[in-house]
Amino acid sequence: MPKESRQYMKLLNLQEIKQYLESLDLIPLIEQGFVAYSQGKAVMPPVGELLIEEHAGEVHIKYGLIKQDDIYVIKIASGFYNNADLGLPSSNGLMLVFRQQTGEALAVLHDEGHLTDIRTAVAGAIAAKHLAPKSVNRIGVVGIGIQARLQLLFLKQVTNCRDVMVWGRNTVACDAYAKDMQVQGFNVQMAPDTQEIMQNCQLIITTTPSKTPLLHVSNLRAGTHITAVGADTPEKQELDAEILAKADLVVVDSKSQCKLRGEASHALEQKLITEKDMLELGTVISGDAKSRTSEKQITVADLTGVAVQDIQIAKAVYLACLFKKAHV
Amino acid sequence: MPKESRQYMKLLNLQEIKQYLESLDLIPLIEQGFVAYSQGKAVMPPVGELLIEEHAGEVHIKYGLIKQDDIYVIKIASGFYNNADLGLPSSNGLMLVFRQQTGEALAVLHDEGHLTDIRTAVAGAIAAKHLAPKSVNRIGVVGIGIQARLQLLFLKQVTNCRDVMVWGRNTVACDAYAKDMQVQGFNVQMAPDTQEIMQNCQLIITTTPSKTPLLHVSNLRAGTHITAVGADTPEKQELDAEILAKADLVVVDSKSQCKLRGEASHALEQKLITEKDMLELGTVISGDAKSRTSEKQITVADLTGVAVQDIQIAKAVYLACLFKKAHV
Repeated sequence: MPKESRQYMKLLNLQEIKQYLESLDLIPLIEQGFVAYSQGKAVMPPVGELLIEEHAGEVHIKYGLIKQDDIYVIKIASGFYNNADLGLPSSNGLMLVFRQQTGEALAVLHDEGHLTDIRTAVAGAIAAKHLAPKSVNRIGVVGIGIQARLQLLFLKQVTNCRDVMVWGRNTVACDAYAKDMQVQGFNVQMAPDTQEIMQNCQLIITTTPSKTPLLHVSNLRAGTHITAVGADTPEKQELDAEILAKADLVVVDSKSQCKLRGEASHALEQKLITEKDMLELGTVISGDAKSRTSEKQITVADLTGVAVQDIQIAKAVYLACLFKKAHV
Repeated sequence: MPKESRQYMKLLNLQEIKQYLESLDLIPLIEQGFVAYSQGKAVMPPVGELLIEEHAGEVHIKYGLIKQDDIYVIKIASGFYNNADLGLPSSNGLMLVFRQQTGEALAVLHDEGHLTDIRTAVAGAIAAKHLAPKSVNRIGVVGIGIQARLQLLFLKQVTNCRDVMVWGRNTVACDAYAKDMQVQGFNVQMAPDTQEIMQNCQLIITTTPSKTPLLHVSNLRAGTHITAVGADTPEKQELDAEILAKADLVVVDSKSQCKLRGEASHALEQKLITEKDMLELGTVISGDAKSRTSEKQITVADLTGVAVQDIQIAKAVYLACLFKKAHV
């Protein structure tokens, strides 16, 4: 006869997830994910896709596991581009956590896309931690959206610099950005263009969905690190591909993925770099690949997003919920 | 800044799902799904798969929608074949319901695989409703597992026959089956072999994971309908392929799927039938294809499972929860 219920699954909403996130030291957890990925310990099948043309919707299903780990994770992430008309954000999502030994569902993290935003920002901090020059007098931010905010917040953990120069197309939104970031302890100055940012900042983060380069090689100075997180499709591009050619180190989160999408793909296509010029972030973290060796070097990190980040952040939130319930 | 939580998602466990199922008339709902599928109104991308060899685990991700509908559904179904050692069932799963207009998550149905069992049994009842002869004196059941039970329960809705003959390899388990089904109002007689079933039953359901045929063409009688639900991979086979060659009608749930797996695939491979001999269940239900025209005809339904069944049952449970909360 039909089985009786015997399983208890946790459902966490966005507010609860945010509370658990506060207790977590995410940088080492996501670093471990990148290392496992670069060591071939991650299993990440092809992304599933469901398109809903009538509502300008796209749904992506990303899933995978780290071998010998306790869990596997399935992430549903969607973008519905008519949602603004309904007063709703376009992006949405949830992550499901399952027990790797038995297939039992452990938790639904209904994060509405927040964990993806956070794990992307954490990856930026990890790139800066391993690649930025020691002395950063000013951080440059290109873009004024959610990532432009979250990247700065997580950079606090890897640099003492609180002086920021920002550029965005919309000056009203730039003002709002500056105010928000001042509340977080940053001194924010508006840049008239990205040239100003490249001339004054040693650590630059680009966070836009641009399809034409915003940073140009003519303005590139020695001793700069750039992390590009905006380009996650073959069409998007924030950096002049010549910047990657001129860089001493080009670090990518996933070689196989960055061959096809993101900044490195454009430089490869134009034969400005070869695959051998691309180092994987996990190998830099583990010390298997060389990191920056002088303050004068130019480094670029191209981050397109890898499922191990989702696996690690989902696992961390689930474990925080399991073991720290009393603190919330 | 990070978005504030604004969404409310329902989480239903197996017990709650069972309560809602009791209020639902599933046959017409699943019939509508088959019709929509055969009319090309369903979108069902390729199935995602995650294999966990260390624990003999496999996870399947099936998802899709019916165009112009309100929802889309993602189903996670797993089989972990070492679970018995831990006292757990091997199969498990859940279904997620999302709003097709916006991508918002509406519900998690933590059914542990039960909804898949039910929608499979309902499809069997639908096949019998449209294809079995009017006069059924005895129902034959091959297999003694969950499907062998659920198929009988749903057949109650489409036939008045309560006399059953069952065959299974394990006689102790056969006894348990007979007792369970007697409680449900059936008179159950054990058959020494499947020949006995084929000689005495007009409506036969096969529900085993057999890889060699259990029903043989030499025992096939005029006026028989057979529904085969066990074979859902290219290797499995319950019916002698000659039975399909001799049948007046061969009805499949999905032509594209049954070309590759299930009973029809074997008959096609042996060139005993052609693709033109296969009718899709949705076209029989809608009347676009002919159904049984005489009591003497032989009909076969080959059911391998289609995502529209999942979509329809998940939607029905979600709506029952939404509108009938007070009755539970």
